[in-house]
Amino acid sequence: MRAGKFITVEGSDGAGKSTQIDFMKHWLTERDIPVIQTREPGGTEVGELIRSILLNEREANFSDGTELLLVFAARMQHLDERIRPALRKGCWVVCDRFTDATYAYQGGGRGIEEERIAVLERWVQKGLQPDLTLFLDVPVEVSLNRARLRGALPDRFERESAGFKEAVRTAYRNRALADPGRIRLVDAGRPVEMVRQEIEKILAGLIEV
Amino acid sequence: MRAGKFITVEGSDGAGKSTQIDFMKHWLTERDIPVIQTREPGGTEVGELIRSILLNEREANFSDGTELLLVFAARMQHLDERIRPALRKGCWVVCDRFTDATYAYQGGGRGIEEERIAVLERWVQKGLQPDLTLFLDVPVEVSLNRARLRGALPDRFERESAGFKEAVRTAYRNRALADPGRIRLVDAGRPVEMVRQEIEKILAGLIEV
Repeated sequence: MRAGKFITVEGSDGAGKSTQIDFMKHWLTERDIPVIQTREPGGTEVGELIRSILLNEREANFSDGTELLLVFAARMQHLDERIRPALRKGCWVVCDRFTDATYAYQGGGRGIEEERIAVLERWVQKGLQPDLTLFLDVPVEVSLNRARLRGALPDRFERESAGFKEAVRTAYRNRALADPGRIRLVDAGRPVEMVRQEIEKILAGLIEV
Repeated sequence: MRAGKFITVEGSDGAGKSTQIDFMKHWLTERDIPVIQTREPGGTEVGELIRSILLNEREANFSDGTELLLVFAARMQHLDERIRPALRKGCWVVCDRFTDATYAYQGGGRGIEEERIAVLERWVQKGLQPDLTLFLDVPVEVSLNRARLRGALPDRFERESAGFKEAVRTAYRNRALADPGRIRLVDAGRPVEMVRQEIEKILAGLIEV
């Protein structure tokens, strides 16, 4: 059976990831393509426990290296338990954040050297890369405003400074520029419907391949 | 100020680590040597949360790689937040399990290649090694009987097979043979008092250095 496709959706909080992921799932299901939706960090029982440590603990007393190792621990579990088995069965996987987020948040945001991340990436992913990554790009002010409107309590990353968020965005943009074949930079500052239409075109292109 | 010494105590459950660590703390304190007692995985707020995932989750759905990354995530936090600051202040640190346990449990027990562990060890420890490691060695049957007598609910590692435990012991013994300068193999199948006397001699030797 043909293997499923692995799609990751990246961007800051407030970039509209959830809305567009809902749309993507709907669009694929309508075309009889089996799809699961998942997220990082998380996606498994162990991974969600790791997520709760990563997002909720006080920022005091949290080493950057600890954060990086926890992210990849959750990812290892996610790949072994959920992503690879789904892809093998021919199911598509739409994942809210993946390793590009690690380069953006732990690399760009925290300043961990790229090569350190790359070593863990090679080990944990064993060559597996997303077939497509959608980077929903919005200016930091827009992302902050949308997150504020949502009114939920900010997590440990949302509580970071504007400088941290700018560094995250810059890292995401640089990765999109460096790997345009896999990562599609989508201007998500536009109305939801316009973003949706662009994503629909990208998905249609992926089906034809 | 003179830096403190870093002592780790290794061995299976039921080897008598807790009893001997209590004795060591008492012995050092009597000699006006400041000492903290800690443990792995754990020793910090974040580390204890990681410990609870590692020890309690069902064994189904737990990748070996996830386990290894979680162990080192907790260790990174422990070193940065607690062990290095204590040593810098001249405080001694007595730690119940450390990286030798990773080679024994995740290496020997789970079969993860040594070099994979070594890469993380170099990164996380940045050259820091214990000044002394006491490996309290007991045959697997003795360790099982003692643990049974204690009557506590077995954790995820204690629930492993006898074969796993033999592999853990063999890995510990091989490490002690390979690095006798740092790792002292103590026959902990003997009465507690005899073990205590041997440890006292070893500690006395460490003070004189």
